[in-house]
Amino acid sequence: MILTVALNTALDVTYRVPALRAHSSHRVTQVTERPGGKGLNVARVLAALGHEATVTGFAGGPTGRVVRDRLTGVADALIPISGVTRRTVAVVDERTGDTTRFDEPGPLITPAEWSAFQEAYEDLLPGAEAVALCGCLPPGVPVGAYAGLVRLARAAGVPVLLDTGGEPLRRAVAARPDLIKPNADELAELTGSHEPLRATQDARRRGARSVVASLGPEGLVAATPEGRWRAVPPARPRANATGTDDSVTAGLLSGLVERLPWPRTLARAVALSAATALSPAAGEFDRAAYEELLGGVAVTGEVSAA
Amino acid sequence: MILTVALNTALDVTYRVPALRAHSSHRVTQVTERPGGKGLNVARVLAALGHEATVTGFAGGPTGRVVRDRLTGVADALIPISGVTRRTVAVVDERTGDTTRFDEPGPLITPAEWSAFQEAYEDLLPGAEAVALCGCLPPGVPVGAYAGLVRLARAAGVPVLLDTGGEPLRRAVAARPDLIKPNADELAELTGSHEPLRATQDARRRGARSVVASLGPEGLVAATPEGRWRAVPPARPRANATGTDDSVTAGLLSGLVERLPWPRTLARAVALSAATALSPAAGEFDRAAYEELLGGVAVTGEVSAA
Repeated sequence: MILTVALNTALDVTYRVPALRAHSSHRVTQVTERPGGKGLNVARVLAALGHEATVTGFAGGPTGRVVRDRLTGVADALIPISGVTRRTVAVVDERTGDTTRFDEPGPLITPAEWSAFQEAYEDLLPGAEAVALCGCLPPGVPVGAYAGLVRLARAAGVPVLLDTGGEPLRRAVAARPDLIKPNADELAELTGSHEPLRATQDARRRGARSVVASLGPEGLVAATPEGRWRAVPPARPRANATGTDDSVTAGLLSGLVERLPWPRTLARAVALSAATALSPAAGEFDRAAYEELLGGVAVTGEVSAA
Repeated sequence: MILTVALNTALDVTYRVPALRAHSSHRVTQVTERPGGKGLNVARVLAALGHEATVTGFAGGPTGRVVRDRLTGVADALIPISGVTRRTVAVVDERTGDTTRFDEPGPLITPAEWSAFQEAYEDLLPGAEAVALCGCLPPGVPVGAYAGLVRLARAAGVPVLLDTGGEPLRRAVAARPDLIKPNADELAELTGSHEPLRATQDARRRGARSVVASLGPEGLVAATPEGRWRAVPPARPRANATGTDDSVTAGLLSGLVERLPWPRTLARAVALSAATALSPAAGEFDRAAYEELLGGVAVTGEVSAA
């Protein structure tokens, strides 16, 4: 089982409207709802890749109930909270294909809820092949939360991937996670360098065993004990499509658990990301496109002389 | 007890954002949720005026549960349905105060659900001092629905107010409701006339005992067996504020039940509407403003020589 931690779960609502105009009224022609938040998206892609995935984190209120009811294919280890799970609303303009997003603030997590989560996490670790810690921290969760969760995973001998930014990333890197997956902005904020090759090496020196930076349509840059690589998709997918980075995380985790060599893992992550950008539904991937793209990812690099 | 029929209930969600920009992402700074739909708004204002109000109509799914949980001050006689109660999302731009609305389509009502509603309605009528039929018909409800509900109310000797438009209004007017409250567009569509004084008289000839047309910031025009009046607010309120027309309906109903003379009823309806436009929350009214405005409404007209 692969455990994903989704402290900031959401109910993702997508509206289609014929044409978006600010400061006017719109009849929504189609409504779709699905569990969202990075940890949940990662778990769903892992399940689609044939892995057993369990998601923990927080869920509460009517939206939390909908999230739990819709967790098909993923084991539910979410902790109930007194707050209400946030929604995100994405309004798709059918004329242009553009999306306008509204993200609700997350609920406040109480100290008792945070303690309950940590206990559940410790209980789940012995059964996990790997752990992914994904997304921002909700209000009420201490900024050193991920650092603590990385230490607990390492103490249990479970490889841990971290996908977050800012101060929570900075603190957790010092706790020596196995793999971090920052995007270009998060990596630059962590290291002070806007040059990805240099910055990934620097992030390793700060404590991460391996670093895979996602550069959007330009693919991935990896710095690992086994070598350094760059993986580039065959065609430039749409930038910033929802969930593409979560598919990268799922691809990396699956490669880690299957003990694939890095070039194959990186190719899988890039192909999944590109296939997610092609899918009409946010956070899903087009399987046929994935299989076709897989052979077209260019991975270049050098193996470490160890 | 005053009965309001809300076939098209909604969960009204309001988001505040610092500045709305189409095709970008927004962090919502404040989320408010409340039961909505015309019939529910009317019931809430009636309750605030000191009347016992019961709401019937449809509610289903997680959003329907939230609507029912939040019906404070109003008796809940909603019929459960297999579909999901729609949401409306109103995004308020904090910079300009402008609102951008997204209205989900309503759920499909099954024939069995429509039958269950009609039975419940007949059971509620003997206890009602008056009935209000409010809003559009949801998918699955026959276009002659309001005509049938008007007839049932009249057969039970209960005065009935109708607030809808289009073909449902046209058919229901022929069933001789006690009072209709069209807006300018609905009245013009019903009568073919864009001249409110003439059109209200014409609507009476088509079957409505009394007609009160709401002309937005220009107030109300009334044609009744007792006389004809025009009621104008002291200051022009913001046009099209959410819920202002529902406050007109509540004001008219309360005057009907309290057997007030028409000029007092119309002044109350206009003052309530203006006080609703002044309230920051959609569908609520500013009580201090209401009481102050009440004396400032100018009602002019002539009593019928009968």
